[in-house]
Amino acid sequence: MQKRNATVAVIGAGDYIGAEIAKKFAAEGFAVFAGRRNGEKLAPLVKEVEAFGGTIFGRSLDARKEEEITAFLADADKHAPLEICIFNVGANVNFPILETTERVFRKVWEMACYAGFLAGREAARLMLPRGRGNIFFTGATASLRGGIGFAAFASAKFGLRAVAQAAARELWPKNIHVAHLIIDAGVDTQWVRELIKQREGQAAVENLDPNRLMPPASVAEAYWELYRQPRTAWVFEQEIRPFGEKW
Amino acid sequence: MQKRNATVAVIGAGDYIGAEIAKKFAAEGFAVFAGRRNGEKLAPLVKEVEAFGGTIFGRSLDARKEEEITAFLADADKHAPLEICIFNVGANVNFPILETTERVFRKVWEMACYAGFLAGREAARLMLPRGRGNIFFTGATASLRGGIGFAAFASAKFGLRAVAQAAARELWPKNIHVAHLIIDAGVDTQWVRELIKQREGQAAVENLDPNRLMPPASVAEAYWELYRQPRTAWVFEQEIRPFGEKW
Amino acid sequence: MQKRNATVAVIGAGDYIGAEIAKKFAAEGFAVFAGRRNGEKLAPLVKEVEAFGGTIFGRSLDARKEEEITAFLADADKHAPLEICIFNVGANVNFPILETTERVFRKVWEMACYAGFLAGREAARLMLPRGRGNIFFTGATASLRGGIGFAAFASAKFGLRAVAQAAARELWPKNIHVAHLIIDAGVDTQWVRELIKQREGQAAVENLDPNRLMPPASVAEAYWELYRQPRTAWVFEQEIRPFGEKW
Amino acid sequence: MQKRNATVAVIGAGDYIGAEIAKKFAAEGFAVFAGRRNGEKLAPLVKEVEAFGGTIFGRSLDARKEEEITAFLADADKHAPLEICIFNVGANVNFPILETTERVFRKVWEMACYAGFLAGREAARLMLPRGRGNIFFTGATASLRGGIGFAAFASAKFGLRAVAQAAARELWPKNIHVAHLIIDAGVDTQWVRELIKQREGQAAVENLDPNRLMPPASVAEAYWELYRQPRTAWVFEQEIRPFGEKW
Repeated sequence: MQKRNATVAVIGAGDYIGAEIAKKFAAEGFAVFAGRRNGEKLAPLVKEVEAFGGTIFGRSLDARKEEEITAFLADADKHAPLEICIFNVGANVNFPILETTERVFRKVWEMACYAGFLAGREAARLMLPRGRGNIFFTGATASLRGGIGFAAFASAKFGLRAVAQAAARELWPKNIHVAHLIIDAGVDTQWVRELIKQREGQAAVENLDPNRLMPPASVAEAYWELYRQPRTAWVFEQEIRPFGEKW
Repeated sequence: MQKRNATVAVIGAGDYIGAEIAKKFAAEGFAVFAGRRNGEKLAPLVKEVEAFGGTIFGRSLDARKEEEITAFLADADKHAPLEICIFNVGANVNFPILETTERVFRKVWEMACYAGFLAGREAARLMLPRGRGNIFFTGATASLRGGIGFAAFASAKFGLRAVAQAAARELWPKNIHVAHLIIDAGVDTQWVRELIKQREGQAAVENLDPNRLMPPASVAEAYWELYRQPRTAWVFEQEIRPFGEKW
Repeated sequence: MQKRNATVAVIGAGDYIGAEIAKKFAAEGFAVFAGRRNGEKLAPLVKEVEAFGGTIFGRSLDARKEEEITAFLADADKHAPLEICIFNVGANVNFPILETTERVFRKVWEMACYAGFLAGREAARLMLPRGRGNIFFTGATASLRGGIGFAAFASAKFGLRAVAQAAARELWPKNIHVAHLIIDAGVDTQWVRELIKQREGQAAVENLDPNRLMPPASVAEAYWELYRQPRTAWVFEQEIRPFGEKW
Repeated sequence: MQKRNATVAVIGAGDYIGAEIAKKFAAEGFAVFAGRRNGEKLAPLVKEVEAFGGTIFGRSLDARKEEEITAFLADADKHAPLEICIFNVGANVNFPILETTERVFRKVWEMACYAGFLAGREAARLMLPRGRGNIFFTGATASLRGGIGFAAFASAKFGLRAVAQAAARELWPKNIHVAHLIIDAGVDTQWVRELIKQREGQAAVENLDPNRLMPPASVAEAYWELYRQPRTAWVFEQEIRPFGEKW
């Protein structure tokens, strides 16, 4: 692996998608700064990346705090120029409208939208003087559709998409690739398998069609391809789903 | 005018659109509860409505406060059953992404999205037991497009649209008409005329094409027609613009 | 009923939606020119309209023939100025892609898209010199979604929507209201009831939830409201569905 | 270059995008079947591809003729299994609605929509028995927007998009990747440069910002990346544009 003098910041480096993104970009030679609420949970990821010779720094990060985002990205940029910032914080909840408390509504927005705005803005601040960079946001089905029970989550995801659009229109001409990657499928995580079990029973999980859920590594690959696009033909938004998904 | 035993709550009863909505529904016999940040500014509207025999109550209302929304709507509903709740708070600002402060981003969201969620939820809570009602949200061009400089405003308006969608899908089958009215045009207000003056000069305002800006009363009419739709053919969303508008 | 010196042309005046449109506008005092493939089938409609004092002319019309469209509209316009042209030809078919013959694909397009283009263009030709008029197109769920089996139908409906958009952008500033009304629901027709029977059984039809299907008269009402919109706040597109519909 | 036992059919192999697609896939070891109206114009492309050791067959092909499409694809499939079919026929015209003749409307549809349907269907027929394949369609700004003067072109492009959607929903679960690539920009062709010259003058062309137009090779690269996507995360649609493009 040839090391690069460049960092990738992963904000929302959870056990699945975030971890795969970190591994992919580390394997491509980037120094990865991985942030999540409880940084201690990053230990296995750090170990795995270091085992194959990658460079990674795991940090505790409350992405809803402006000063934490700023410090996290400044830190990454001090190590080596921040080449890519990926915002991947999720906050998927479902409640009937009457049971959606103001606390839930606000918290989901702070995690899935406001934090993304902060991350995008601060990444842009570091990238603009160099005239290059990439800012990517993870979207979901709820980025485009306010389904029943998703007032809080869809509202935050719609809002994040608007941030991405406004940033893209402003920053693309300055050579910063802003993109919004919509995952229109269930991702293969413990949480999704648990949901399937609750809804469809234990057998449904055990006999799960291997093509039904999206492997987290596929999301990492999609980000990698977005990164590799020549600026003569950038994509702002794309939806990915497994070949067997209904849409 | 025949008085009805029903109230209309207008949240965000500003001098233009909100005032026209209040006058229209008062003229149709509804008791109107009009709320805006500074309730004293409602005096001319109250006077005008009362002059033609309409019933109206003007209230100071910080729509970002859960308890104020709840009290305002409960109050309206106590007067007579809440038939329609119209959320019309605006918060149109434009800043380059780097100059969009966290304070602005949060405040715009609280005004244009979070307050709308609260209003919709609390209106639904009052309407559901009666199995009827109407909850309408005012949208803008920025509800569908995150243009340059609109990270804050578009994010909030996208978010509000998601709330409206989720609420509509849940509440329509319970006979509550949730709709989202997108105004894809400049509305004829002092503020918009000032913008035109700043951008295009005094002459541009003086010679303003009478068809260029949308009269606020047209928005009120559009809401009236949404209200009158039979439930056999409800509209969730429509964009209105003057015939000469480019889109 | 006060008669107006104005005609409404209904192209695709079938037994349900088209007939209701004809009755509605005739009841509002317009002279209605109703065209359908086999004009003889219009006899009951003509009788019904004349019974309440309305003015209606039923014609055989192959809307896929340029000269027939031209003659039909010229004829209407000779009777009295053509105020509204409504294109309502349907051609809903569903075939797996491999079984969609070139003949079906072409025919569906000719009926649902090409004929609509001809109707819109020829109506505009008559309306432009007078600087006023209305051209409305009936859309469907398939105007926005290419579902499985709908390669032919959705392709034609997407195409019709594009015609409507291009015409609206060109003709609105010339005071001609072009609009596209999307019916996102099953309409209560013999054909739809037959489909339900085939798919869900006889009992499903007999116990049909009265709110499930859209009454054709609701579509006529929606057109009437589009017609009544002031040009300060025109709508180009709206989707209508019954309150109980899933979307 | 390692040769593959697989063919790529390029329908609409014009001098720019089509030619670059052909070169790219030939360089990747595919046998390319390139079809365009006047096959003799393919001589330089064939020469260029053969010069670098690629395999290519140039054919005269009227894509609007069912039997020609069928024969062309069967021919390709006989040489080696048809792995990818790319439909790239353009037909960009602009006329005011009144000047859009029925002949133009029909011809543009036959070229840009109907031919695409035939290509997609016949490619699917060859691919389905093998349970694998890729069918890609080239879209344009007019695939999503019916701008003034584009009644014919947008109608055809909207229609093509619907075909692609219906085909994708039916064929993805059968392991055939159907995708729609929207080029939302001017492509650097002689024709586009001529348009710029006409509209903006000779100087505009001579001093053309090198980032303004999309290089045709970028479209070929985008198709290549679509082809390489794992089926766990397929993209149906994406819009590409140069980083400096306004949207």
